[in-house]
Amino acid sequence: MRPFELTLTEASAALRRRELSATELTHSVLERIEAVDARVGAYVTVTDEAARAAAERADAERAAGRDRGPLHGVPGGLKDLIDVAGLPTTASSQARSGHVAHSDSAVAARLREAGAVLVGKTHTHEFAYGLTTPQSRNAIDQDRVAGGSSGGSAVAVAAGAATFALGTDTGGSIRVPAALNGLVGLKPTYGLLPRSGVTSLSWSLDHVGPITRTVRDAALLLAALAGPDAGDPASLPAGSAGDGLRGTDGDGLRGLRVGVPSTYYFERVDPEVEVAVRAAIARLGDLGAELVEVTTPMDRYIHAIHWGLMVPEATAYHEQTLRSTPQSYGPDVRVLLEAGELVSAGDYLRAQRARTLLRRAWARVYEQVDVVAAPTVPMTAVPVDQHAVHWPDGTVESVSDAYVRLSAPANITGMPSLTLPVGRDAAGLPIGMQLMAAPLADATVLRAGRAYEAAHGVRTTPGALVS
Amino acid sequence: MRPFELTLTEASAALRRRELSATELTHSVLERIEAVDARVGAYVTVTDEAARAAAERADAERAAGRDRGPLHGVPGGLKDLIDVAGLPTTASSQARSGHVAHSDSAVAARLREAGAVLVGKTHTHEFAYGLTTPQSRNAIDQDRVAGGSSGGSAVAVAAGAATFALGTDTGGSIRVPAALNGLVGLKPTYGLLPRSGVTSLSWSLDHVGPITRTVRDAALLLAALAGPDAGDPASLPAGSAGDGLRGTDGDGLRGLRVGVPSTYYFERVDPEVEVAVRAAIARLGDLGAELVEVTTPMDRYIHAIHWGLMVPEATAYHEQTLRSTPQSYGPDVRVLLEAGELVSAGDYLRAQRARTLLRRAWARVYEQVDVVAAPTVPMTAVPVDQHAVHWPDGTVESVSDAYVRLSAPANITGMPSLTLPVGRDAAGLPIGMQLMAAPLADATVLRAGRAYEAAHGVRTTPGALVS
Repeated sequence: MRPFELTLTEASAALRRRELSATELTHSVLERIEAVDARVGAYVTVTDEAARAAAERADAERAAGRDRGPLHGVPGGLKDLIDVAGLPTTASSQARSGHVAHSDSAVAARLREAGAVLVGKTHTHEFAYGLTTPQSRNAIDQDRVAGGSSGGSAVAVAAGAATFALGTDTGGSIRVPAALNGLVGLKPTYGLLPRSGVTSLSWSLDHVGPITRTVRDAALLLAALAGPDAGDPASLPAGSAGDGLRGTDGDGLRGLRVGVPSTYYFERVDPEVEVAVRAAIARLGDLGAELVEVTTPMDRYIHAIHWGLMVPEATAYHEQTLRSTPQSYGPDVRVLLEAGELVSAGDYLRAQRARTLLRRAWARVYEQVDVVAAPTVPMTAVPVDQHAVHWPDGTVESVSDAYVRLSAPANITGMPSLTLPVGRDAAGLPIGMQLMAAPLADATVLRAGRAYEAAHGVRTTPGALVS
Repeated sequence: MRPFELTLTEASAALRRRELSATELTHSVLERIEAVDARVGAYVTVTDEAARAAAERADAERAAGRDRGPLHGVPGGLKDLIDVAGLPTTASSQARSGHVAHSDSAVAARLREAGAVLVGKTHTHEFAYGLTTPQSRNAIDQDRVAGGSSGGSAVAVAAGAATFALGTDTGGSIRVPAALNGLVGLKPTYGLLPRSGVTSLSWSLDHVGPITRTVRDAALLLAALAGPDAGDPASLPAGSAGDGLRGTDGDGLRGLRVGVPSTYYFERVDPEVEVAVRAAIARLGDLGAELVEVTTPMDRYIHAIHWGLMVPEATAYHEQTLRSTPQSYGPDVRVLLEAGELVSAGDYLRAQRARTLLRRAWARVYEQVDVVAAPTVPMTAVPVDQHAVHWPDGTVESVSDAYVRLSAPANITGMPSLTLPVGRDAAGLPIGMQLMAAPLADATVLRAGRAYEAAHGVRTTPGALVS
């Protein structure tokens, strides 16, 4: 196996055993970027020389007896909304031309402190305001969408062009591209990971989180990155999630109550996706979990609440640039930003109040079950020129609306949601299952995902790109 | 001393010693209402027969050996925004004509459970949207405003027409009338007292709290009423304020750091008010407190943040009625409600974000001091026909804007604020000092207020109404 194909956990172990150096691993990943990025379009910026230098420092430190932990010497990519001192944060937008970040975002600083090697900044749907990331292509099939908005991050990890990556998730933007590229993606509890220095889409819905090849890899990143951030007003106090972020290898799933939604999450879902996810849920039962049918609350308000919060919050962030240089945004993003100027305080307030009711209603679901399992997205990666989905019930939905539909509830409520690959459709495209839990029960979804992965995980092979 | 003149603490002690019955006390208060309410206009509804029956039940229970605690048999009034089963909640508005509450608000239920006797519902500035309560008159001088919006509650307690009362406070509506009528008023930490069944003005700024004759009385009510409320999304979990709500009699003020604002709170303040409050602060120093000059943060944004939150939130609550029967509101309230329809989501968001910054900035103030002491209102009760204040610096302010100016920061941040009487001006009108502390440090302001009161409190005599 070539170094760029290793999981974070495997790479970390090999580095610690001195079977591999950070320099060898980083060179392998940089060569892989060179080999595949023209096809998949994962990166805005490849750090190259800086990455090689960071890898050499990591090796020198290790040689001197210092081990910064499991990320020490491991190369990763950051969605290009995440500031790194001295690099532009382009947000994949003309509106950011000439931008240079003057300091590290909190997550970049924590990764640096943990010894990780930054290999580059990955493409986002412009300012994270979309679900496809048109600059990138799906790692499995380059005629298909990458998913978004953290499309570059997912494609990089899936293609072997990063050992891990970070993304952001406002309505599914970590989980959607992770699912469409056969990866693990975690949207942690709102406020658990620091957001200072991360370009905002919608402050009350935005989350930072990992995209990785395994659940165990995601757990390592969560443990390394969680913690209070004085610069993020939503940041939770230290210890909010308890000690649960470490030790997510449990003894099976006995005693775990897994909720299976009877509505919403299995409606307007492609039959191949439904079959694969229901089979995966049955496997959770085989591992000892108790499967419980649940009714998820207020489903028909999800879309209105999500848009009612996101649209005006996004516009508030972009207000100045939108007035001075509206032409610097792509047409799809510009129309959304301009629409946000027309939203009244009353409509925004209604969305906020409905969100409060939704949170309370979901809290009652988590009195019955520990985890809710559902499809992450209702269909696999669509062809890049497809913009609408026609469902058998006669309804038509935009691709973006469909991709966000099942992931948005976790953004509105702040509950953790982990997606993991559970199969492929007939075209060989990956299918994702999401596991959700009550706010701050991140360890519970990681433990459940880890048990599934240990028993049934199929190794994704970044080396093998279709087409 | 006639029974209606007793403080809650005194009445409670006399009831427990069987020197007084609930029936005698209630009759005394009802007769006092009969004697003075035509002059002061405290009550919308006097419960009369129901109050007598409740008092008799309280006496019978006590005779049977049951003591429900310090409120058992004590008559009080509720601002007419607070639902009581079977009674109208008029909000002092035509818009509520024909209204009857079908169940008790959480505070009414807790008072009932604690054995308190409801003697009536008190006037509010219409829907709490104003600082004067024109239906009521100041208890000390009936040519002066009662203050508002909990004007009826304050006037009732000051005039001997209730042993205690509850009000609500969105920008000062408990503290302003309490200060103008020589009383104690407590706006507790946001979320500490339950709000189910209380008509909302602005959900993110509204608080319920006591208006009493002494700090000790206020502490008794806080202890009886605090606690989680499943029907109030802002309600804090049990135990949030620790055990601090009981035992607020401390041993002097040694070790307490009292902040004295160098800006804002002493600007555009009547000289008689400033002198009285500075003298009271000096007395806190004499009692052992360390006086520390502090700069309060973001003062020039207070007005914009407060209005930016309150106006659209109030309109959202009234939206339906405002469209169907706008003429049912008084002209002052109607224009504010209609203005709220014009506020954009962006402006509301800016106010929310500025509120977050303000909270964080105040948290830094409370790293330096335990309490901040300041005037409650910049001037005493104005004549009922005065609508503007001309300050020596040439600025002109509406009476409402002036009354709310120094109390609004505690609503925006959610910090507790206690007002207590600290003197009179040359016209004999009461002057109030407010003590503020960090959120959940309600016990700290009560302890400080109690120490001041024990050393320097001057008994207000409800029997003696001027004019």
